[in-house]
Amino acid sequence: MQNSAERNLKSRLSELKSKYEGYKAMNLSLDMSRGKPDSEQLALSEDIFEYKYIGSFQSKSGIDCRNYGLLDGIDECKSIFSEILEVEKKNLIIFGNSSLSVMYDYISQCMVFGAGSTPWAKLDKVKFICPVPGYDRHFGICQHFGIEMINVPMLENGPDMDMIEELVKDESVKGVFCVPKYSNPDGVTFSDETVRRFAALRPAANDFRVIWDNAYCVHHLYEDRQDKLLNIFEACDEFGTHDNFIEVISTSKITFPGSGVAALAASDANIEAIKKRMTVQTIGHDKINMLRHALYFKDAEGIRKHMKLHADILRPKFRVVLDAFEKNLAGKGIASWTNPNGGYFISLDVSEGCAKKIVKLCADAGVTLTGAGATFPYGIDPLDRNIRIAPTYPPIKELELAVEILCVCIEMACIEKVLLAKAA
Amino acid sequence: MQNSAERNLKSRLSELKSKYEGYKAMNLSLDMSRGKPDSEQLALSEDIFEYKYIGSFQSKSGIDCRNYGLLDGIDECKSIFSEILEVEKKNLIIFGNSSLSVMYDYISQCMVFGAGSTPWAKLDKVKFICPVPGYDRHFGICQHFGIEMINVPMLENGPDMDMIEELVKDESVKGVFCVPKYSNPDGVTFSDETVRRFAALRPAANDFRVIWDNAYCVHHLYEDRQDKLLNIFEACDEFGTHDNFIEVISTSKITFPGSGVAALAASDANIEAIKKRMTVQTIGHDKINMLRHALYFKDAEGIRKHMKLHADILRPKFRVVLDAFEKNLAGKGIASWTNPNGGYFISLDVSEGCAKKIVKLCADAGVTLTGAGATFPYGIDPLDRNIRIAPTYPPIKELELAVEILCVCIEMACIEKVLLAKAA
Repeated sequence: MQNSAERNLKSRLSELKSKYEGYKAMNLSLDMSRGKPDSEQLALSEDIFEYKYIGSFQSKSGIDCRNYGLLDGIDECKSIFSEILEVEKKNLIIFGNSSLSVMYDYISQCMVFGAGSTPWAKLDKVKFICPVPGYDRHFGICQHFGIEMINVPMLENGPDMDMIEELVKDESVKGVFCVPKYSNPDGVTFSDETVRRFAALRPAANDFRVIWDNAYCVHHLYEDRQDKLLNIFEACDEFGTHDNFIEVISTSKITFPGSGVAALAASDANIEAIKKRMTVQTIGHDKINMLRHALYFKDAEGIRKHMKLHADILRPKFRVVLDAFEKNLAGKGIASWTNPNGGYFISLDVSEGCAKKIVKLCADAGVTLTGAGATFPYGIDPLDRNIRIAPTYPPIKELELAVEILCVCIEMACIEKVLLAKAA
Repeated sequence: MQNSAERNLKSRLSELKSKYEGYKAMNLSLDMSRGKPDSEQLALSEDIFEYKYIGSFQSKSGIDCRNYGLLDGIDECKSIFSEILEVEKKNLIIFGNSSLSVMYDYISQCMVFGAGSTPWAKLDKVKFICPVPGYDRHFGICQHFGIEMINVPMLENGPDMDMIEELVKDESVKGVFCVPKYSNPDGVTFSDETVRRFAALRPAANDFRVIWDNAYCVHHLYEDRQDKLLNIFEACDEFGTHDNFIEVISTSKITFPGSGVAALAASDANIEAIKKRMTVQTIGHDKINMLRHALYFKDAEGIRKHMKLHADILRPKFRVVLDAFEKNLAGKGIASWTNPNGGYFISLDVSEGCAKKIVKLCADAGVTLTGAGATFPYGIDPLDRNIRIAPTYPPIKELELAVEILCVCIEMACIEKVLLAKAA
């Protein structure tokens, strides 16, 4: 005998299924998978290619940016990043187009040469702490180098610091990858207390490194709701732990992904070690592109103004997703989601065991989402419930349709789960 | 009792010394140390920054070059390098600004992951063959990774292949770094026979790799004296040894050092292994800069035409050095030098045991040369006789003066050596 709740669910499910079949018949191809800027955002920075931004080819210090040399980047770029990250110019290196490569190279260096220590490649086991959900490419680097990953849950104010404080007592735990501001995908900014507890860590490993991937440091969505991240290196002043942190940043989502500049901030000792490697690895990065960026933005304020234009484009897209979730999912007990103040993602948690199924349902209806599990090490979400929503790339109309379909898929999968449980 | 020859030498020496003191009093600062293009050469490519070369931002295949993606570079760039290197596009990857980084990364990958083999970092000993004199940055990479270097002399047609064929019988010999065309510093282009013997190598190590640094492949100095290098991959067809070779090239000395594009050519298997690493390391290199280069040059012929303009600037500089050597050193039995058909260097051999002294004498008179020994592994020239002359960077007037001083220093040092020997 079915009770009335169950009958209602079944009837709702059949309603959703018929909607879903309708979408499928549309042969759509909608992509919400990656945190990519859309073409309107890309157009914002096109003026950077005006000849006037590079015309002299001379850096302020008299360097000819067209020629070899200047391993650590032009002073003009350092000034801007120094202002944004609140670190001294001597603690900065300006790189090429990607902070991902900078992080990869840093870990690679630790593997082959250690960090003032035994090369990690020579150790039986190297472990990294991975706040979850997190950024798949961080996990990718760890996996590539055979670094064992340990999940630590992200809480409201950052990763679970109690757990991290326990874990670092293990000497084989060599580091953490994290996105401390507008985290990927949760949009969490670490609280002052979290940052201070990071700074206060006294790991058993003397070559412990936190990769502080400040990818979204200027990526606010709202004028009146902006997170502020405590400067990690200032927090370290109290504990003398500056060597534990490698901070990276890039202009990939400020100007152009792949054609921007990246920077690394670190302690004197770490900068020295990195430069020592760089003298062998390169004669210098693209200084003309550095000059272009420096003269186009002039200073940190120039970047902040520019980011408001990005936010104007992104806000309506986040709104579309949040409104659809509110309208279709709120109060049903089948999903919760974040409403971040910045960054590129909305993190969606659905009923346990349903994420993979939902992503598959969406894919079959022509909506590509970030793979379920991608936000966890080894691609394994133990509760199979997190889906990273990337609303930035598709045009609004496509996004509306894609989210509509996503909501149908979520409700379908979650109802099916309930009915299956009842049947069991 | 002095004989008349000795008296003549002493009188000549005192004449030279007084000249030298005169130069010293001029407080000069002349730099012939690095293979850098001069500002006239750099100006040749400035039109590349016209907006029309990037204006659409679309690659032929419809990729938006402003956004993320396309790990191995745009097709337009592959077409050009495919023509120049005579390899299929599928065997090419387009990189960022520097072939040096590409080589570093490749060796780093071999250290951590091997080349389809045990990671080199896990082996007791890894050795590389280094044709000498050679390029200091190749030696730098080996030294950085703890790879033991074995000197093999450069002969008229390339490195001593008899020696190389013997050395590769040792399983710990994992590779060779070489510049097969207009070699640094000798300007030697490997003969067809040398290339074939390279291709025919059957090393004991199954992960043997030749880094075929084709840095000067289009860098001819003369219209009527151009070297032709046999295509290494074609030579491999006979022996099935394609996996042994990693070829690199860049536009550093075609457009702008640091702001150009680099490329790697390799076998299907090697390309696959490198791409596998790259998917973790980067989301892609600067595609806007690739597009700029591709549309500016259009094809290999565009590059070849452009290189003639470089040659027009470089020929007179090489002439200055060669004329001064001819005038001041010929027939004295104290020096020999190369007269290359292309590349960036003249290789100078002085009397044994005199190179360091000469470089020091020049430095004291304000003329910076490439360090003596730099053209040998570990900075040790066993005969202390080779000096790499880089005539490209200084303006003609400065170059004339610098070479004049160099010739004085050479003669001084060599006469002093003879007198010292007589005294002993």
